[in-house]
Amino acid sequence: MKIDLAGVFPPLTTPFDRSGRLDLVAFRRNLRAYRPYSLRGYLVLGSSGEAGSVDFDERVKLIETARKEIPEEKVLLVGTGAPSLKETLELTQIAASNGVDAALVLPPFYYKPAMTTAVLVQYFSTLARAAKIPLMIYSIPQFTGIQVEVRAVAELSRKPNIIGLKESSGNLAYLAEIIESTPKRFQNVTGSALTFLPSLMAGAVGGILAIANVAPGECVEIFEDFRGGRLSLAARKQRAIVKLARALTARFGIAGLKAGVSAAGFHGGYPRSPLQPLSRSDQKVVSELYKEMRANW
Amino acid sequence: MKIDLAGVFPPLTTPFDRSGRLDLVAFRRNLRAYRPYSLRGYLVLGSSGEAGSVDFDERVKLIETARKEIPEEKVLLVGTGAPSLKETLELTQIAASNGVDAALVLPPFYYKPAMTTAVLVQYFSTLARAAKIPLMIYSIPQFTGIQVEVRAVAELSRKPNIIGLKESSGNLAYLAEIIESTPKRFQNVTGSALTFLPSLMAGAVGGILAIANVAPGECVEIFEDFRGGRLSLAARKQRAIVKLARALTARFGIAGLKAGVSAAGFHGGYPRSPLQPLSRSDQKVVSELYKEMRANW
Amino acid sequence: MKIDLAGVFPPLTTPFDRSGRLDLVAFRRNLRAYRPYSLRGYLVLGSSGEAGSVDFDERVKLIETARKEIPEEKVLLVGTGAPSLKETLELTQIAASNGVDAALVLPPFYYKPAMTTAVLVQYFSTLARAAKIPLMIYSIPQFTGIQVEVRAVAELSRKPNIIGLKESSGNLAYLAEIIESTPKRFQNVTGSALTFLPSLMAGAVGGILAIANVAPGECVEIFEDFRGGRLSLAARKQRAIVKLARALTARFGIAGLKAGVSAAGFHGGYPRSPLQPLSRSDQKVVSELYKEMRANW
Amino acid sequence: MKIDLAGVFPPLTTPFDRSGRLDLVAFRRNLRAYRPYSLRGYLVLGSSGEAGSVDFDERVKLIETARKEIPEEKVLLVGTGAPSLKETLELTQIAASNGVDAALVLPPFYYKPAMTTAVLVQYFSTLARAAKIPLMIYSIPQFTGIQVEVRAVAELSRKPNIIGLKESSGNLAYLAEIIESTPKRFQNVTGSALTFLPSLMAGAVGGILAIANVAPGECVEIFEDFRGGRLSLAARKQRAIVKLARALTARFGIAGLKAGVSAAGFHGGYPRSPLQPLSRSDQKVVSELYKEMRANW
Repeated sequence: MKIDLAGVFPPLTTPFDRSGRLDLVAFRRNLRAYRPYSLRGYLVLGSSGEAGSVDFDERVKLIETARKEIPEEKVLLVGTGAPSLKETLELTQIAASNGVDAALVLPPFYYKPAMTTAVLVQYFSTLARAAKIPLMIYSIPQFTGIQVEVRAVAELSRKPNIIGLKESSGNLAYLAEIIESTPKRFQNVTGSALTFLPSLMAGAVGGILAIANVAPGECVEIFEDFRGGRLSLAARKQRAIVKLARALTARFGIAGLKAGVSAAGFHGGYPRSPLQPLSRSDQKVVSELYKEMRANW
Repeated sequence: MKIDLAGVFPPLTTPFDRSGRLDLVAFRRNLRAYRPYSLRGYLVLGSSGEAGSVDFDERVKLIETARKEIPEEKVLLVGTGAPSLKETLELTQIAASNGVDAALVLPPFYYKPAMTTAVLVQYFSTLARAAKIPLMIYSIPQFTGIQVEVRAVAELSRKPNIIGLKESSGNLAYLAEIIESTPKRFQNVTGSALTFLPSLMAGAVGGILAIANVAPGECVEIFEDFRGGRLSLAARKQRAIVKLARALTARFGIAGLKAGVSAAGFHGGYPRSPLQPLSRSDQKVVSELYKEMRANW
Repeated sequence: MKIDLAGVFPPLTTPFDRSGRLDLVAFRRNLRAYRPYSLRGYLVLGSSGEAGSVDFDERVKLIETARKEIPEEKVLLVGTGAPSLKETLELTQIAASNGVDAALVLPPFYYKPAMTTAVLVQYFSTLARAAKIPLMIYSIPQFTGIQVEVRAVAELSRKPNIIGLKESSGNLAYLAEIIESTPKRFQNVTGSALTFLPSLMAGAVGGILAIANVAPGECVEIFEDFRGGRLSLAARKQRAIVKLARALTARFGIAGLKAGVSAAGFHGGYPRSPLQPLSRSDQKVVSELYKEMRANW
Repeated sequence: MKIDLAGVFPPLTTPFDRSGRLDLVAFRRNLRAYRPYSLRGYLVLGSSGEAGSVDFDERVKLIETARKEIPEEKVLLVGTGAPSLKETLELTQIAASNGVDAALVLPPFYYKPAMTTAVLVQYFSTLARAAKIPLMIYSIPQFTGIQVEVRAVAELSRKPNIIGLKESSGNLAYLAEIIESTPKRFQNVTGSALTFLPSLMAGAVGGILAIANVAPGECVEIFEDFRGGRLSLAARKQRAIVKLARALTARFGIAGLKAGVSAAGFHGGYPRSPLQPLSRSDQKVVSELYKEMRANW
């Protein structure tokens, strides 16, 4: 059965308490609070979820909790990329056996010079053959230092069990070219709120957007205005999220995102070290930008 | 009097003959051939014009020829960026005295580590005070290695005599933020055809697009469909230029652009060394992509 | 008691069999085969050991095996860097309780823009206070994308329990400046064989060198010639390892190193995916370069 | 007749007065003041000479002045790299007709993606065939963004009329590999004082060192101690220049170098815009580091 990625997904933040303990209660509350919005689904353990700072047992708990709280008809995605094929496959199979719909997989990126296009194609192909759930390729060069070449994505888009790509750098030229180079069944999704509407217009089917943790309704509106052909309206709304979107990502990073989640009335909590919480004054900046976005809506 | 950048500009290629001599006849023919299209104006001596390979006397001839051939009501822009303030100013004043409307100025980029935001702000401010015509800031980090910071652009956008920015990397997130951070009178223009329509929707006023040397009418259509509110139609056309646009820039560089100019029936000619002409087989690829674009229109 | 890093350490490769299983027997054989050489110690689970592809249980086995096989007077270092402070600390304490002398710790590098100098200083300081064994800072920007600033290292070099730095990019200018900016008790070590002797002359105390897995005796000779004041002789030998050293790192990566280990008569084995084994012809290149180095000795 | 590059060259700074005018008197005074030192020669119009900010007529004057002031037996090098083959060749022939011994040529670097190894090999080969004086390849990736590949240098090192390479990034691993890959007659020179002695030990024949504008005698001593086999002494002196060398380059750039030239009693003068003079307090830092270096000698 086809997994439909057309719509908005928050890449869920992972709430920790002040001493760094996983706060599953807050995580569950957020999931319930997001229910009223017409989100297409959720991503657990992406970059916004501080996946690298979450240990194995905690990962399983987060997945189980998410699956339990998320209605059947919503899509549950989980980030399972790890430095080795072996570990990535293990995490993917665990996700599969916990009812996850698809796995979002980073290219291995430590040994950068060795990660040629041929090696990456082989890596994702091998993984896709073995995985019990479909895969999405996760391109986020600002963190990995690797941008999967268009021709690698084009080749992988023809493999069964690889259903799409998430592109998180906001490089629309790159995404547009991938869209033109991959078959229609391959679902390209943007991870950059700053290019959400333009990506949809270029042929992306949806967005996995950090800001959807903070402003799920607004993101859904942009998507639905686009779908409904109300492009001018969508464009106005797209412009209204620019400053906040950047504060939650490039400007203040995950700590800024968590501050935004709290500012919007959800449960942000603390990041885990090495990430540091936002200063009081920066929290205020985020909060003001949230209010400004609401005021301009 | 305000210079209105709202529309499409080809950054004109500079035709050379096989032995590298400037071909002013071909340059003039192209200008005449572009006349029927509703272009907003022209850029002479940009990156697509191989400005760095054109010597002083040739520059003057190109500017004079362009001014003579271009109707009064069209905007004539000229690239005048050079490594030093002194040379940049000289080239700008020469442009001014030859009837150029505005100068497009690269940030100085050789001594990268010294080009802090403060230094760049001072550089453009000093230049703007002295220049007899308005300036545009030219951001093209793929060639210069320098991305002028949003806050530098924001500060410069408040100076008199700096009227806009050309952003050529296709980084829409960056451009969107600049648009939200600069006053309405400051005109932001994209230099990336791959993000033309999205940039317009984000608030850019126009495009200085390499592909407009090859497909001026098509670029103007996208612009006019956007202006007329026919966004779905514009989006379809935007998608139709993706592959050709990339062949003329990232994929084959200036040599590819010149091959495209010839494929479309204008005068491409040869690039100057260090650039090398396209191989016969790559010329054919460009030609096929041009035909494909036309067929999909 | 002071841990003395003055000398040569191989960053041990981790042998896997054809199907990717950890080959502890081969690992042990290598350790025994290295015994006759006057190595200062060993690094387990560094970049050359494919640490990211080794799971938790395997890590413990490798550490236990190494500690058992390595004579008391030799220094045992283990790489314990992980994406979070929590996991890094866990791995460090496990190393401590298994008799490891010091932990080599990567800066967290996924959320690059957030890893400011202040954050990195706090990260290593916190870790050092909690760790039951001393730490070394591990700078390898070609893989992490992060170069710890000189002033951060200078500050950290004054903390108790941080005993040194391994610099693996071969950036001698950077290393020389660190050496001049840190107190004498802080032990700087190079990870680049191509700059081994120059680093010693600049004040580095030793080298953790991939090529020491292949040519332990040769590396020790360079070190001892340096110590003995036979600098011209050392320089001649340093030049004799250049081509092989590069083949084992920048040119062919870990797969090349493993081929070299086998070429020298030790047990190289296979890399784990995502890394791919060397082609037959590249193996031959490595083998020839090994013979050439031996012939020139 | 062979041009012998074995020794120390200052890449001469170009003195400007407060209003940015070329100060030929100061330039001449510096040349006379450098005479007592056993320098091998001089480089005019390199990166330290702000070549990009010096116009055509000034270039000719600087070359003429230098040739007149520099004794016959000293080598005069001039930087002639420009964006196009045509302009580079013109500047090279003018240098030739003014008695310059060899030209130091940057790779063209604006259209980075087009500057493949094949294009660069062709570029330098064509230039070398046409030039009336020998060429040196100038690698300075921190400014150009281009590192000429080892195999390109190896190929070019076999062409007549290309006599050597200047490597200015301080990447000793790269330089060492080039030295091992080029014939003995090809003279490799370092442009990085921080790796001067190590580069000599690796087989470089000399150094074109910014710091030689400030401390010519000290640089010559290091070279002569190396030549005389007094390696430990040379190493001690090499370490004594580390902090000052970095202040004159990476830390404070050309402005720092000019401050150092003045601190040492020569004529530094002002940099030309876009470069800005050093603040008073940074001038003091440079001056202190100069005194510290002298005190440690």
